[in-house]
Amino acid sequence: MDDCIFCKIAQGRLGSFIFEDDELAAFKDINPAGPVHVLVVPKKHIPGIREVKEDASIIGRMAARAVEIAAEMGISDTGFRLVVNSGPDGGQSVQHLHMHLLGGRPFGWPPG
Amino acid sequence: MDDCIFCKIAQGRLGSFIFEDDELAAFKDINPAGPVHVLVVPKKHIPGIREVKEDASIIGRMAARAVEIAAEMGISDTGFRLVVNSGPDGGQSVQHLHMHLLGGRPFGWPPG
Repeated sequence: MDDCIFCKIAQGRLGSFIFEDDELAAFKDINPAGPVHVLVVPKKHIPGIREVKEDASIIGRMAARAVEIAAEMGISDTGFRLVVNSGPDGGQSVQHLHMHLLGGRPFGWPPG
Repeated sequence: MDDCIFCKIAQGRLGSFIFEDDELAAFKDINPAGPVHVLVVPKKHIPGIREVKEDASIIGRMAARAVEIAAEMGISDTGFRLVVNSGPDGGQSVQHLHMHLLGGRPFGWPPG
């Protein structure tokens, strides 16, 4: 997906990671919604969470990685919010599966 | 966990499910933040996402179930938001792991 910005980032062709392994990459959101705002994405192009299907375990691995990054960033105890958006009402802005890790300030309710 | 309200619900001792299998239960949030607001929880008492650890795959199964419920509720194409809160800044209000499925209206940004 040559025109996918998250593919470019995940392939190391744009910006820099804060985490990378064979399957996942994590990087800071360019429009942070809080003091900590990290995106965890699969390196493989998956358009969104509806397309994960039989490989739903990747969501678990993305979440586990987000929890580890939260600890590394010192917000494990103060708290954080994980968000995955799908489609127009969800506000999904990039059509490449991503999980938001948000922290460093109180996040109110409702979540948008 | 006799004093955990989500344990009571997940065990069928309080309220009603919209989904149930051996591992998970789903039910409507009593304070809905949108036209669709469903909680997906493990039946087993897990205090939060930090305590999932080596069983992170359960998060994937919770997400897959939420995606299926979104389809059943007719919000798969209009869109939805999945949210997991952890700790004070995340606004985690019940100390039993749960995933919010929110839809039926546009959800703005930032998410709280």
